[in-house]
Amino acid sequence: MQGTHMTNPTAAMLVIGDEILSGRTRDANMHHLAGVLTERGIDLKEVRVVADEPDAIVAAVRALSGAYTHVFTSGGIGPTHDDITADNVARAFDTPISVRDDARALLQAHYDKTGQELNEARLRMARIPDGATLIDNPVSTAPGFTIKNVHVMAGVPKIFEVMLQSLLPNLTGGAPVLSRSVEIFRPEGDIAGPLGALAETYPAISMGSYPFIREGQFGANIVMRGTDENQLSEAMDKLRAAFA
Amino acid sequence: MQGTHMTNPTAAMLVIGDEILSGRTRDANMHHLAGVLTERGIDLKEVRVVADEPDAIVAAVRALSGAYTHVFTSGGIGPTHDDITADNVARAFDTPISVRDDARALLQAHYDKTGQELNEARLRMARIPDGATLIDNPVSTAPGFTIKNVHVMAGVPKIFEVMLQSLLPNLTGGAPVLSRSVEIFRPEGDIAGPLGALAETYPAISMGSYPFIREGQFGANIVMRGTDENQLSEAMDKLRAAFA
Repeated sequence: MQGTHMTNPTAAMLVIGDEILSGRTRDANMHHLAGVLTERGIDLKEVRVVADEPDAIVAAVRALSGAYTHVFTSGGIGPTHDDITADNVARAFDTPISVRDDARALLQAHYDKTGQELNEARLRMARIPDGATLIDNPVSTAPGFTIKNVHVMAGVPKIFEVMLQSLLPNLTGGAPVLSRSVEIFRPEGDIAGPLGALAETYPAISMGSYPFIREGQFGANIVMRGTDENQLSEAMDKLRAAFA
Repeated sequence: MQGTHMTNPTAAMLVIGDEILSGRTRDANMHHLAGVLTERGIDLKEVRVVADEPDAIVAAVRALSGAYTHVFTSGGIGPTHDDITADNVARAFDTPISVRDDARALLQAHYDKTGQELNEARLRMARIPDGATLIDNPVSTAPGFTIKNVHVMAGVPKIFEVMLQSLLPNLTGGAPVLSRSVEIFRPEGDIAGPLGALAETYPAISMGSYPFIREGQFGANIVMRGTDENQLSEAMDKLRAAFA
């Protein structure tokens, strides 16, 4: 989808997790985040998935934080030895990190209530970089945090989703991007000519063609996105007319 | 999952597609590729998803190609104006690209058989960088290609999967990595201590903890991976004993 002329805030996502890279788990947070940001007028421009390795996390945080308005991370903030995200996000910004009183108080109250022990492992989840803002976690209490333009959240989808909900009111969105789509049951090679011509006529509308095979038949979803409703309708009508 | 000491070939994946980043489509190829490579003893170390933008593709191809043994790309090789992967992979390597006779002959034979026209749009799919090797596509004929260590494949999952099958016999794998896992219905904070101690005792085994919430109950899948079956069984027995 070329020819996008949006000036919305941009975003990247960083998924930290060997379980995704080994094929054990199928990531769900990327798809969720993408939908939420699109609704909000924030353009998700890049996603990276890296292993649970300190240098990989540091390098990705630095690169993405420098290139986009927002970075959302997912995974690696639990109590086990392989939860190394918080420490390495701090390292990416050369910021000290330690158990912070406000985070510890949240955990203490939670475990007092559930009758569990705030042991050394759980206390890891109160390690927060200096100057970070906590992100509320109504599901399991252990907070995420925002440092500079990086929002650090859990990998478990339910927790990722509630943390994102906690965070959203603080994010400034852009102009809502409208989208129209149509399924055309013709091979992409037949659609390409008329669609390419339309894309040239309407440079402010981004047009994407997403082919599929369904019951042995080739087709494509054509998606048009832009901020001007009249232009969108006009272009969509012309496309439909070309394949009526 | 830290402490991995494998010397297997490494790999990265590059997903090219605005449809993933806008949340329209949920990517399926990453999970498929991850599973296939793990079986094969090739370590998938990083995945990037970038937009259909020339510079984003070029930068990612260069970075990943330089850092890993193999790079697998998915998406953007169809006949429409937004299919710009082949041209930008060529550009990443400063390699000329044009309609190549062998690829054109494949397409011509296919469209002759199906009674469709090999029009200008479809001919785009015969654009192959100089020196690349074609990747067979038994589903819809238009080939993928390998240039240097980059394997360029389609985004439609069925086609991605058959291209990967075509490619696999040419890839050298590593020592098969064995994996054992156990579900422990205890909060991660209770598992973390004993697990961390085991991880220190067995540095050649990578141990990961993947928490879940099921019917309101917290638990974690503990996964151990390594190449020594005896060590794996020993470590797994000790973990089980700790939570029996």
